[in-house]
Amino acid sequence: MILSEKLEKLIQAFNHFPGIGRKTAQRLAWFLVSQDKTFALQLAETIKTTVESFTTCHFCNMLSEYDPCPICASGERHDSLLCVVENNSDVHLIEGMNEFNGRYFVLGHLLSPLDGFGPQQIHTDMLLNRIGELKPNEVILALKPSAEGEATIHYLWEVLKDRGIIITRLSTGIPFGGDLEYSSTNTLANAWKRRYNV
Amino acid sequence: MILSEKLEKLIQAFNHFPGIGRKTAQRLAWFLVSQDKTFALQLAETIKTTVESFTTCHFCNMLSEYDPCPICASGERHDSLLCVVENNSDVHLIEGMNEFNGRYFVLGHLLSPLDGFGPQQIHTDMLLNRIGELKPNEVILALKPSAEGEATIHYLWEVLKDRGIIITRLSTGIPFGGDLEYSSTNTLANAWKRRYNV
Repeated sequence: MILSEKLEKLIQAFNHFPGIGRKTAQRLAWFLVSQDKTFALQLAETIKTTVESFTTCHFCNMLSEYDPCPICASGERHDSLLCVVENNSDVHLIEGMNEFNGRYFVLGHLLSPLDGFGPQQIHTDMLLNRIGELKPNEVILALKPSAEGEATIHYLWEVLKDRGIIITRLSTGIPFGGDLEYSSTNTLANAWKRRYNV
Repeated sequence: MILSEKLEKLIQAFNHFPGIGRKTAQRLAWFLVSQDKTFALQLAETIKTTVESFTTCHFCNMLSEYDPCPICASGERHDSLLCVVENNSDVHLIEGMNEFNGRYFVLGHLLSPLDGFGPQQIHTDMLLNRIGELKPNEVILALKPSAEGEATIHYLWEVLKDRGIIITRLSTGIPFGGDLEYSSTNTLANAWKRRYNV
């Protein structure tokens, strides 16, 4: 017996989120209806006002409440360092380090021609414009070391290499707390090749 | 740099759900703002209309869009079988079996006097009223075999034992697909005691 069409709709909506299976979606939906209603109504309101106010920063391509975003608008960030990331959430991760005080550019996707993500989809022209404006000394390609990440790093390096900019990428190797035994052969071979003096 | 107060509020709301940590909450919030806005706005609307329409069935104590709930309202369910469960979601699980065609009663909690859940909090009087109305032949105590579940089963058995009703509970033992090696000593000892002829 289907007990509630509305609840079923809510479960299906939660099931739509990445990494949320049917069982978790049921748990979330039941939690919402079992709690004091104010929590759920506030959540609905927060979702509405947040997505309605979010827009894309036309400088760095990041989703933000404001255009320009707080980082592009800030007078206290250095133009000399530009960090290129795949996703909006990567900006938050890197900000969380409290280590970087330059500017960002969000590609939105990694290069993956077979899936329809070519140079245009990763906003290459917008990135080149931004580099023209900021004139950074160094561009940090903070992309993940996957097949798509490597392809994107290689492509951007090709595009940028003759502009007199230092182009760097994040170090690869065994993660802190990681075990040699559980590292893939690729990771281990890469860490071996990139070994450094103690 | 805190990039968006609104997004932070949304992350904190998701973080409030059971089993959703900070990292998952961030992923969910970013998913919502990165998608086509219609999805998020529809979700907000579904949450609002669902919780606003949900109420408690005054017969079986289940959260439902309707009072009486579809099961209590149905003329095709047998009054002779009453299934007592802890949670609203248990009703959906049992309905999912397509095996049971009786009525339900939702306790809302298991007995746990130290946490403030006594006979009144598990709606004993409401259950007794319902039993008086339905006059079931059998009451199935479909509660989990934990300390609180056992205490609740024992308590309800005490309350119901002299009414000429068959009182049953779910079988306990090794789960299907479970491994003896990974079963607790309690589970194994219980399965041993409850062994049956092949």
